[in-house]
Amino acid sequence: MPKNAFYAQSGGVTAVINASACGVIETARAHPDQIGKLYAGRDGIIGALTEDLIDTSLESAADIARLRHTPGGAFGSCRYKLKSPDEHRAQYERLIEVFRAHDIGYFFYNGGNDSMDTAWKVSQLATRLDFPLICVGIPKTVDNDLAGTDNCPGFGSVAKYVATSMREAGFDVASMARTSTKIFVLEVMGRHAGWITAACGLASEAEGEAPHLLLFPEIPFTPDAFLARVKECVERYGYCTAAVSEGLRDADGKLIADMGVKDAFGHAQLGGVGQAVAQLIKDKLGHKYHWALADYLQRSARHIAASVDVEQAYAVGVAAVEQVLAGKNATMPAIRRTSDAPYAWEIAVADLKNVANVEKKMPLEFISPDGFHITDACRRYLSPLIEGEAIPPFVRGLPDYVRLKNIAVAKKLAAFEVEA
Amino acid sequence: MPKNAFYAQSGGVTAVINASACGVIETARAHPDQIGKLYAGRDGIIGALTEDLIDTSLESAADIARLRHTPGGAFGSCRYKLKSPDEHRAQYERLIEVFRAHDIGYFFYNGGNDSMDTAWKVSQLATRLDFPLICVGIPKTVDNDLAGTDNCPGFGSVAKYVATSMREAGFDVASMARTSTKIFVLEVMGRHAGWITAACGLASEAEGEAPHLLLFPEIPFTPDAFLARVKECVERYGYCTAAVSEGLRDADGKLIADMGVKDAFGHAQLGGVGQAVAQLIKDKLGHKYHWALADYLQRSARHIAASVDVEQAYAVGVAAVEQVLAGKNATMPAIRRTSDAPYAWEIAVADLKNVANVEKKMPLEFISPDGFHITDACRRYLSPLIEGEAIPPFVRGLPDYVRLKNIAVAKKLAAFEVEA
Repeated sequence: MPKNAFYAQSGGVTAVINASACGVIETARAHPDQIGKLYAGRDGIIGALTEDLIDTSLESAADIARLRHTPGGAFGSCRYKLKSPDEHRAQYERLIEVFRAHDIGYFFYNGGNDSMDTAWKVSQLATRLDFPLICVGIPKTVDNDLAGTDNCPGFGSVAKYVATSMREAGFDVASMARTSTKIFVLEVMGRHAGWITAACGLASEAEGEAPHLLLFPEIPFTPDAFLARVKECVERYGYCTAAVSEGLRDADGKLIADMGVKDAFGHAQLGGVGQAVAQLIKDKLGHKYHWALADYLQRSARHIAASVDVEQAYAVGVAAVEQVLAGKNATMPAIRRTSDAPYAWEIAVADLKNVANVEKKMPLEFISPDGFHITDACRRYLSPLIEGEAIPPFVRGLPDYVRLKNIAVAKKLAAFEVEA
Repeated sequence: MPKNAFYAQSGGVTAVINASACGVIETARAHPDQIGKLYAGRDGIIGALTEDLIDTSLESAADIARLRHTPGGAFGSCRYKLKSPDEHRAQYERLIEVFRAHDIGYFFYNGGNDSMDTAWKVSQLATRLDFPLICVGIPKTVDNDLAGTDNCPGFGSVAKYVATSMREAGFDVASMARTSTKIFVLEVMGRHAGWITAACGLASEAEGEAPHLLLFPEIPFTPDAFLARVKECVERYGYCTAAVSEGLRDADGKLIADMGVKDAFGHAQLGGVGQAVAQLIKDKLGHKYHWALADYLQRSARHIAASVDVEQAYAVGVAAVEQVLAGKNATMPAIRRTSDAPYAWEIAVADLKNVANVEKKMPLEFISPDGFHITDACRRYLSPLIEGEAIPPFVRGLPDYVRLKNIAVAKKLAAFEVEA
């Protein structure tokens, strides 16, 4: 009897993480002689700890195929980081206990930096405990900050969404600027790295096009320099649009979001850096503003996913199973770029221990010398990642996303308390 | 020589107002024996007052055709309401003077309630001054509150965008709820009428689907009743999603947006009702929340426009010219629904005087008895309006929108000061 496999989604979900799940499940199903059942953790690794396993073999091939165009995490995800095996050895032992009870020999963990670290630790502990477990990580993060891969599935679709939204809002504000709104600010994700902010810049392909200014978390916010640029922009084009990272900080490293907006009781509000920056312009230059907070809309916008992102997300799922079948362990399928234009890529094999906990920063040469926009080098890197429109099927005017049955496997073990 | 025509865009722009412009220009060009040049007002009616006329005959047929898939107002719009002819007779006389100088015999005004009122007043004044001017209004508003027409071009595409976004964010939050975000709130436009809020409700087609709760401007906000429903929802489904109108008010008619968020200096912030409602949930029930503010993204999202909306926007542009050619005056092409399912519609002729300044409210029977969702009657009305995907062309991964040359006609008159 072949061993069963376990798959879990981890951390913030994306528009294409289910495409990776689809790649894993379809490829595992194609090798019944080597892989038995594929169980998914309900709500990620918590499903393994609580023995809440979803039997994906009860889902139809058609529904599994529909995962490819469905956003969110079909089996549930979680923000739950396993501590080190020394600190919380009981958790790791529980994982092994559950895997042993359900004859699981393959562990697929679909997530970002933390998850690759967890997969690496689980792999090490299994070896130490002499439990036969092959661990493969599958890259996912909208933040694009995972090491060992040219880019990360999930990012390209957010990039396409924010650049499209910025362009569209720019056309709107340009129309209104004469008598009404002259300023538009879009707040985007990316607390530590400016990849998503940079992606907004793709919308501006010629002099004067939105977005005019980008505020990166890598560049300390200097109100005077920024206001001077806004003023110049309004004088030249009649309006000004900006994209702002939620992680924008001042020269002391303090989040601008913490400074700007307080609630009715005077408590600082997280979020709202977009409004804080827009309000600063209004206070100092007097212009009427609008601002938007894309929040979850940006990472769930499967309706405007990039084809290349969907393909890569699916491909890393397929490759994860293929690496297992090829006898790899403690690896992660990575994307290797072989050409910028025309864009070409292939799947490579990265070692989990080299990926775990290494944050890929945005190169400073991707930010223009004045700190307010992206360079041509950045465009060369980013532009291929938003290529292609992978429009999902629509029914009654709305995208037709799948909800799986998610039927649980019968439990065999005693309950286990998951610490909050 | 045939008379020239004047076309202007007015008020907040939409994803499809340029499709109406396209219909006007293409149809006018097809009748050179009856209509001479078509001039567009730069920044709306202000372009007429300041004699800043754009010669649309200098744009290629290909570029005019691209207006059909370009959001925003291609010639600029404005928020500028002409006062009554008695109060500001000079303005109306200036309009007539400009029209006379440029041999303009046709006035097309593309806007909402205020604009239809202005078109009606201009028509009356022209008659009184014995100046031969045929005035036709062209309906446009995302708010769907224009009288005399079953629905209004611009609304269907916003409706499709917000319903799609709500569905997508719902899939995201459902994945995260176990250990992280349990609450998601989307703030949408519609200060006086809940049409856009109602459209969010289309995303929920079965028990438990997002959005779970809608907060309409028509229904006074009762925190206790709302919190009880949120609590119930989290208990039943593990999470709760809500769409909130920017115009939500309390029982005293006070905007919730004014109560919720204050800036660092204690000033009330307009906007932010989404955050105020989400923070209320956090304060009272303790759940982690995310919120999004769609703002201009919702009304400029041409990438997810509804086909039927684009077709109707184009059709009212075509019909406006046809009404002129058929000898109508002081009319507006309206959309008349002839069947719900399958949806069928035709263009009718409305009289401007019956449309001007009449606000179409959302019927109360469209809101469920508990005040927190939409009824089946509402779905029957709304659902056809979001049908079809009119995906624009994409280049380098981004929608390819047109920027016209917008070349001004030589001025013939002395300058005219436009009051702010």
